[in-house]
Amino acid sequence: MNIKQRRTIRKYTQQPVSDELLNRLIEEASRTQTMGNLQLYSVVVTRSEAMKERLAPAHFCQPMVTEAPVVLTICADFRRTTDWCLQRKASPGYDNVLSFINAATDALLFTQTFCCLAEEEGLGLCFLGTTVYQPGVIIDALELPELVFPVATLTVGWPAEQPNQTDRLPLQAILHQETYCPFTPERIDACYTEREALPENKHFVEINNKETLAQVFTDLRYTRKDNEAMSEGLLAALVCQGFIK
Amino acid sequence: MNIKQRRTIRKYTQQPVSDELLNRLIEEASRTQTMGNLQLYSVVVTRSEAMKERLAPAHFCQPMVTEAPVVLTICADFRRTTDWCLQRKASPGYDNVLSFINAATDALLFTQTFCCLAEEEGLGLCFLGTTVYQPGVIIDALELPELVFPVATLTVGWPAEQPNQTDRLPLQAILHQETYCPFTPERIDACYTEREALPENKHFVEINNKETLAQVFTDLRYTRKDNEAMSEGLLAALVCQGFIK
Repeated sequence: MNIKQRRTIRKYTQQPVSDELLNRLIEEASRTQTMGNLQLYSVVVTRSEAMKERLAPAHFCQPMVTEAPVVLTICADFRRTTDWCLQRKASPGYDNVLSFINAATDALLFTQTFCCLAEEEGLGLCFLGTTVYQPGVIIDALELPELVFPVATLTVGWPAEQPNQTDRLPLQAILHQETYCPFTPERIDACYTEREALPENKHFVEINNKETLAQVFTDLRYTRKDNEAMSEGLLAALVCQGFIK
Repeated sequence: MNIKQRRTIRKYTQQPVSDELLNRLIEEASRTQTMGNLQLYSVVVTRSEAMKERLAPAHFCQPMVTEAPVVLTICADFRRTTDWCLQRKASPGYDNVLSFINAATDALLFTQTFCCLAEEEGLGLCFLGTTVYQPGVIIDALELPELVFPVATLTVGWPAEQPNQTDRLPLQAILHQETYCPFTPERIDACYTEREALPENKHFVEINNKETLAQVFTDLRYTRKDNEAMSEGLLAALVCQGFIK
């Protein structure tokens, strides 16, 4: 597993991704640890052009969604387990926030094992964090029933690009010994100065007419206004899917 | 990456896990895709006996927590990014539910890459889903500030057992083509009958005086009463950590 070389791939060749390969990778990824061995997730495979077109707006119409040979939507799923219980004289109680977090956790761990396996196989992937921005669009398109909620989307194909790797923060930015070590101004500088000095980031600040890289995030990419509006939408979708009363 | 052979390991040898190895694996896992390259997670390393004792009750005092050489608590973390913004004349707006889900997603994807790398290295791991059951205990013990929330715990060590692999549901239980395919009673049978027929599961039903395997889950392992009480606790902790107003 060559994690050191990994990068997100957004452009794919015309070579198809076979069902045989896809199913093998999904089956292998299902060895991932899962709560009570319940496997609280499901994968919806999108290959049809029509469905890709329906999903695209949920992902801000990023071109990967319609251009990739396969799109996978991975869902937190307590529906199947609940149906199993109902068929087996058992009274399920999984229509609550804890159960959503449990199922989302299962789904995301499964997703990442799939990513590791698929990248090891030479496939290129793009993880779409937009999945939770407008979940209602995805829920409608994929006909997700109550107790099923989309938490991750992957566009999958054979790489047609080899982009530069992005940087990462130094280990001290993410690592804490025994207790959480607060971030003093000096520690923030030590974590971020190198990143801020990268030519591509300086350029990014400049073309956006901002003073600092952080302002590009707070004022343009991930604004309070958008976050608060999408938080409302997310909660409404959780109510709609039966995880919140 | 030999995912087909993976199993959860709960017993560890006395051999230590070096900081060098641990840091290398954490650094490699940080190549995982992350929202806007913000790396919205942190890892708190527990090696001290005293801290393991403090964390144990949050995990129902399962013996792995105090017996493992290392315990890792992985947190959704918008604190560092928020502090960075505050130091850089930017106005962060990450005290909301969407931001929690974004950071939890980042944290769980990172966690699973770490798991894949660590298992490839020969380490044994146990993922503790209990992390979100009583998050307040962990938050207090690890002194997690606002906008930091524990989402995963791993006990880590060199394996001192080789347990049998657990079964998994057939692929049709998790896979849907184009739209979500509802679970009819026949489909539930097709997904679960083999599992229910396993001698260990029949035994499990019998010793618990239940009629079906599903009842062991609904009546004993994951009850509505517990789930609803812990959902309240989870929401209260999210308020306390500043992700819900």
